[in-house]
Amino acid sequence: MRIVQKFGGTSVASIERIRKTADIIQSELNQGKQVAVVVSAMSGETNRLTAMARELSATPAVRELDALVATGEQVSAALLAMELQSRGIAAYSYSGGQAGFVTDGDHVRARIKSVESAHLLVHMQAGEVPVVTGFQGVDEHGNVTTLGRGGSDTSAVALAIAVEADVCDIYTDVDGIYTTDPRMVPKASKIDRISYEEMLEFASLGAKVLQTRSVELAMRFEMPLHLRSSFDLVQGTMVVGEDETMERAAISGVAFNRDEAKITIMEIPDQPGIAANVFGPVAEAGINVDVIVQNVSEQGFTDITFTVPRSDYLPTMEIMRVLCKQMQARDVKGDDTVAKVSVIGVGMRSHAGVAKAMFDVLAVEGVNIQMITTSEIKITVVLEEKYIELAVRALHTAFGLDRQEA
Amino acid sequence: MRIVQKFGGTSVASIERIRKTADIIQSELNQGKQVAVVVSAMSGETNRLTAMARELSATPAVRELDALVATGEQVSAALLAMELQSRGIAAYSYSGGQAGFVTDGDHVRARIKSVESAHLLVHMQAGEVPVVTGFQGVDEHGNVTTLGRGGSDTSAVALAIAVEADVCDIYTDVDGIYTTDPRMVPKASKIDRISYEEMLEFASLGAKVLQTRSVELAMRFEMPLHLRSSFDLVQGTMVVGEDETMERAAISGVAFNRDEAKITIMEIPDQPGIAANVFGPVAEAGINVDVIVQNVSEQGFTDITFTVPRSDYLPTMEIMRVLCKQMQARDVKGDDTVAKVSVIGVGMRSHAGVAKAMFDVLAVEGVNIQMITTSEIKITVVLEEKYIELAVRALHTAFGLDRQEA
Repeated sequence: MRIVQKFGGTSVASIERIRKTADIIQSELNQGKQVAVVVSAMSGETNRLTAMARELSATPAVRELDALVATGEQVSAALLAMELQSRGIAAYSYSGGQAGFVTDGDHVRARIKSVESAHLLVHMQAGEVPVVTGFQGVDEHGNVTTLGRGGSDTSAVALAIAVEADVCDIYTDVDGIYTTDPRMVPKASKIDRISYEEMLEFASLGAKVLQTRSVELAMRFEMPLHLRSSFDLVQGTMVVGEDETMERAAISGVAFNRDEAKITIMEIPDQPGIAANVFGPVAEAGINVDVIVQNVSEQGFTDITFTVPRSDYLPTMEIMRVLCKQMQARDVKGDDTVAKVSVIGVGMRSHAGVAKAMFDVLAVEGVNIQMITTSEIKITVVLEEKYIELAVRALHTAFGLDRQEA
Repeated sequence: MRIVQKFGGTSVASIERIRKTADIIQSELNQGKQVAVVVSAMSGETNRLTAMARELSATPAVRELDALVATGEQVSAALLAMELQSRGIAAYSYSGGQAGFVTDGDHVRARIKSVESAHLLVHMQAGEVPVVTGFQGVDEHGNVTTLGRGGSDTSAVALAIAVEADVCDIYTDVDGIYTTDPRMVPKASKIDRISYEEMLEFASLGAKVLQTRSVELAMRFEMPLHLRSSFDLVQGTMVVGEDETMERAAISGVAFNRDEAKITIMEIPDQPGIAANVFGPVAEAGINVDVIVQNVSEQGFTDITFTVPRSDYLPTMEIMRVLCKQMQARDVKGDDTVAKVSVIGVGMRSHAGVAKAMFDVLAVEGVNIQMITTSEIKITVVLEEKYIELAVRALHTAFGLDRQEA
């Protein structure tokens, strides 16, 4: 058995936590496994470094920003390797470049091009533990690059693929993916197995356990992921290929996000390119648009409604007011008290009527649906924020997700 | 004109200091010079990192200790490059490995084997500024190594040699080498030019401005050093080859050290190998022995007297008491209230009578000399600590070093 273990910032946040993390690694070695480790920077370290850069310049040179923040993981990797060595385990820290991570030259958000880690595999096979810095690599000229926030997950998956690991364990401070947020629905239950596709939908809906890129990468190479808690070593959630998930109900979970705002531009003269005209300036401002709905054109006019994160509501409204005049639309309306609820499940591909069932449940509860979008394995509705608990709990029960008491 | 500028930890200790340091670099560029920069870690950073390692283990793995502390310079180099870039100067940070510093594999105290910096020279010739981490390199396998405390001076000199700089500017918080400590002798004056040999003697006597290794390296390749203050941009002290120093008096300065203790083993049965017997155990304990005097043998017995740093007095005495019995010597005596005074100058090679002049001055002042050692360009005496001010001031005046009032 060969594994790659990824530990996030909280798992290396202090000397005490580094020792606990070393305990976990040691117990896997004691079971005869071959182990490589990928670490993030100590909690807060990346922010500390970035803050110094921002103090120097509002727009620091990105090559230098990467060289700067990459030291965060180098520190935690060296400390963890040290701790393992002091226990008699042969462990060696590797920076991204030393570990063979070659990326493109797109600083601050580089993409991994290749991982040349044959030398690490030799160590693993000899029972030694490479401790690799997550989140970073070097470009073809040897410049240090970083993968962007959360990139350590992607590093871990890429390394697991490169050394042909059997599984990539992602340790975080939660013990897996739940059918919905247990703080809202006490009967939410941990999902034992979930497909990559479902995990992607959960991730994009704000389940902050895994970076989307890392799931996409794992899916492409069919690398099983195990999301688990570094505080509580029970079985977590396995993320695997769809055919490896067991037969089960149509829906695996209910996701939601309160942090939404809705904006409508009304009666835009309909002509080719209006969507680009609307969303171009928004994208340029670095604002992520989520749900978009455009009604069919009526008498040469159309309405476009979309949602953005609530924190981007005011700047987006300003952009839209300008556009409204330019495009000779009638008006712009906004509402920053909406929320989003989604049901997710690969099972809905084969189960007809999930959408109808969802709308029926909400209708029975008297919840008004403002927008609807669907993908192959997800149905999302936008509704007034005040209905969110009601909607989530009703859907969780209706789709049979409530935990059965033992 | 091509220069390498080395800035120590205080010059990059804060955002404010980094800006001041960038001012200095910019003003050199504005004079049309080609510039490369070598930086230390921000003050305190190396200690912070080392403290974490010591918390994990009393004897941390040295490979990991190097990987850990090397991040200190990487942070300051990236920040300084960032600040230069924000002023429109093309500046790029380089780790030791990226800058082409290849060392042996002797972690924590590696020695530079080669510096492959042709790519940095290309940048310099294009008016761009490489900002290189001092103190570090990589071994032939790409493992990060460090040169030991103060190694940044050596990095700077090595880089200056590699890019064939005209001078290596070493910025510190003092503005040069003085004829003696101005706190003790207000008439001490800054030395404008000093030879490498003299600088080595000053450095070994505790003038903490330059690491000995860096002076030796500069001497071997005849790289002129300019010791100067980053707080006050006046001319500092040039360290150059002996033939480049101007004709001047026999003595260039008076150095002293209070921090001495003296130990004598009395009446050791004289036989080959006793010096090795005495100093072997002291060296094994990591204690630096400084002055050693052995009197001629008398009736088959000899006395050995030596000095150690005062902080090592008690452990050394314990070692000596054990040895005394083993070697059947008569007794061990110690005195931890001695001090050392040296006069230094390449001029004494050609000026007879410097030793006599020195002893005369001390005799006139009633100072009793306890030990004497001489090198080609230095005469050192050990004396009771209470005489130190008297001795230093009298010698400073007698050898014509007192600053002439303008």
